[in-house]
Amino acid sequence: MTENSSPASDAVRLDLDEVRSLALSVLRKAGLCEAQARPVAQTITECERDGRQSHGLLRLPGCVMTINSANFNRTAEPVISELTPAVVRADACFGYSLLAFERALPQLEQKAKALGVAVLAINNCFHFSALWPEVESIARMGLASMAMTPSHAWVAPSGGMRPVLGTNPFAFGWPRADTDPYVFDFATSAMARSDIAMAKLSGQMLPDGCGLDAQGRPSNDPAAVLAGAMTTFGGHKGSALSTMIELLAGPLIGDMTSLASMDFDAGERAAPCHGELIVAFDPALLGNDDPATNQQRAEQVFAGFTDQGARLPSQQRYLTRAHNKANGIEISRELYDRILAHGGERVAS
Amino acid sequence: MTENSSPASDAVRLDLDEVRSLALSVLRKAGLCEAQARPVAQTITECERDGRQSHGLLRLPGCVMTINSANFNRTAEPVISELTPAVVRADACFGYSLLAFERALPQLEQKAKALGVAVLAINNCFHFSALWPEVESIARMGLASMAMTPSHAWVAPSGGMRPVLGTNPFAFGWPRADTDPYVFDFATSAMARSDIAMAKLSGQMLPDGCGLDAQGRPSNDPAAVLAGAMTTFGGHKGSALSTMIELLAGPLIGDMTSLASMDFDAGERAAPCHGELIVAFDPALLGNDDPATNQQRAEQVFAGFTDQGARLPSQQRYLTRAHNKANGIEISRELYDRILAHGGERVAS
Repeated sequence: MTENSSPASDAVRLDLDEVRSLALSVLRKAGLCEAQARPVAQTITECERDGRQSHGLLRLPGCVMTINSANFNRTAEPVISELTPAVVRADACFGYSLLAFERALPQLEQKAKALGVAVLAINNCFHFSALWPEVESIARMGLASMAMTPSHAWVAPSGGMRPVLGTNPFAFGWPRADTDPYVFDFATSAMARSDIAMAKLSGQMLPDGCGLDAQGRPSNDPAAVLAGAMTTFGGHKGSALSTMIELLAGPLIGDMTSLASMDFDAGERAAPCHGELIVAFDPALLGNDDPATNQQRAEQVFAGFTDQGARLPSQQRYLTRAHNKANGIEISRELYDRILAHGGERVAS
Repeated sequence: MTENSSPASDAVRLDLDEVRSLALSVLRKAGLCEAQARPVAQTITECERDGRQSHGLLRLPGCVMTINSANFNRTAEPVISELTPAVVRADACFGYSLLAFERALPQLEQKAKALGVAVLAINNCFHFSALWPEVESIARMGLASMAMTPSHAWVAPSGGMRPVLGTNPFAFGWPRADTDPYVFDFATSAMARSDIAMAKLSGQMLPDGCGLDAQGRPSNDPAAVLAGAMTTFGGHKGSALSTMIELLAGPLIGDMTSLASMDFDAGERAAPCHGELIVAFDPALLGNDDPATNQQRAEQVFAGFTDQGARLPSQQRYLTRAHNKANGIEISRELYDRILAHGGERVAS
């Protein structure tokens, strides 16, 4: 750790091993078992590495709240079972989703490569952070995939003013031959809730169209939106997509919707608890025996973005990754102190 | 057929059998074989029945152009094959997609009900019209499903000005116990191309945000947008979703992207030719043996829309369906005459 001098004298610089150690220390202190803590700390580290601060160290105080909540199982051992030759189920047993994902991943890969398509249904998991690390790791196995989860009912449907839907992230990964996978991951809310929370902390107003106050009036005040309702991205289309995620990652796999997750939380303000659906596809099996043409056609789409200067999803993230692996990251002194106050141990170079 | 008097003296009223007969007569006259013509006429009829005029009779002149194009196979017999126990392939052999879908549907159902998830990959098909009739029919088998296709490269990615992506429709269906399925189907472009074409015909300007002129400037002029580039819905998120559709319904299944389809068309202005991906899921197999709770949770989401007066996707369509089944539909005298000029036979009550 280095305490920076000007221009940002309140910044704390950490290398990525320090990020991981800091995260691990908080999670251990909160009582999370080692098997659960490791992948959570790893994802926090990967989010910081890729410049996704909203899903990085900032999440640790919320993790402590979740780990201390009545429904959370600190020592959960995921139970992996084969539901059919095409479906693997991972019961996270009310721990975080990440260990369940990690344990079930080999079966998902094997099934998708045997059948061309396979499903991983994670049940009873507390949601942790971004989905892109999952679809990226699946893409590095040569598989395309989509991943989705409900969350808490914070988001009003298009045309409504009361929350029904979650922020319901949707992620997709596609393997590329000679470069990093194509990956995107977005909230189906107009803005991620963590970004609204960050705006509130930093005293910034929201752009238009991100939410409604408790009376259903459009609002730019993050506090009013957090107390009222967020809105979906893309009007009625984003709202429709969000319902699909509720249904596929909820009732389809015998798990909770965002409304049910909110009830289950009973005001504890823990992370949402629900299911996750991942569908993996094998281009090698489905691709009509012409991988070269298929790859060339996919690359032509990507070049169609970059050749005209449009940003290809994940492009900026890989650049940030390379930079931060070499240089480490900076967090504010205020956040660093808050993490220490939540049980973090000081990290040093 | 009834020729209406005022207030709409230029309107022609048809019952649904007349719609089907009119469509069939145009398709037969153009040389489409009976097996292909029947499901195309049926989908046109269903679109008119449900108030989706943009995908109804209006499409017939374009169908004639497609059927007459060099690449189209008027007598195509789809070839259905099992790729794996979870994947059925339907080679449409350069006919329309609909007959291929119909022929492969029993295998898709059987596979999804055996394994919990299954894929139907349609290849080498000329796109016809809306996807919602397909996901609705799958939902009526008790299965959830998503369907997607590329189109022609008419749509600029977020941050770009030149077309790369198609209008790339995405549809989803969910079976409900005691009522019509929950279904949505939207273009990932901000506006459907057929709606832009309708605006051009009727001399209306487009809402903001639907497209760019050939110089990349935002435009409300439908002619300028048709000659320039359409935009995606929902900014970078809609753009990302559209790329997923390019990849999954294109290179994943060994078929063309919207760019490749445009090249293949070689200026003939036929319908796009490409693949279609359908993924079906069986809630009965995946639902953790608690269908009552799952159904109740799903219905709670739907009630969350309707209880606050937000429109649930497909709700309006089912109301229109009931009305039009009883009352028939009206088309303009101009459209009716244009259809007759394209080979349609006069229909009469």
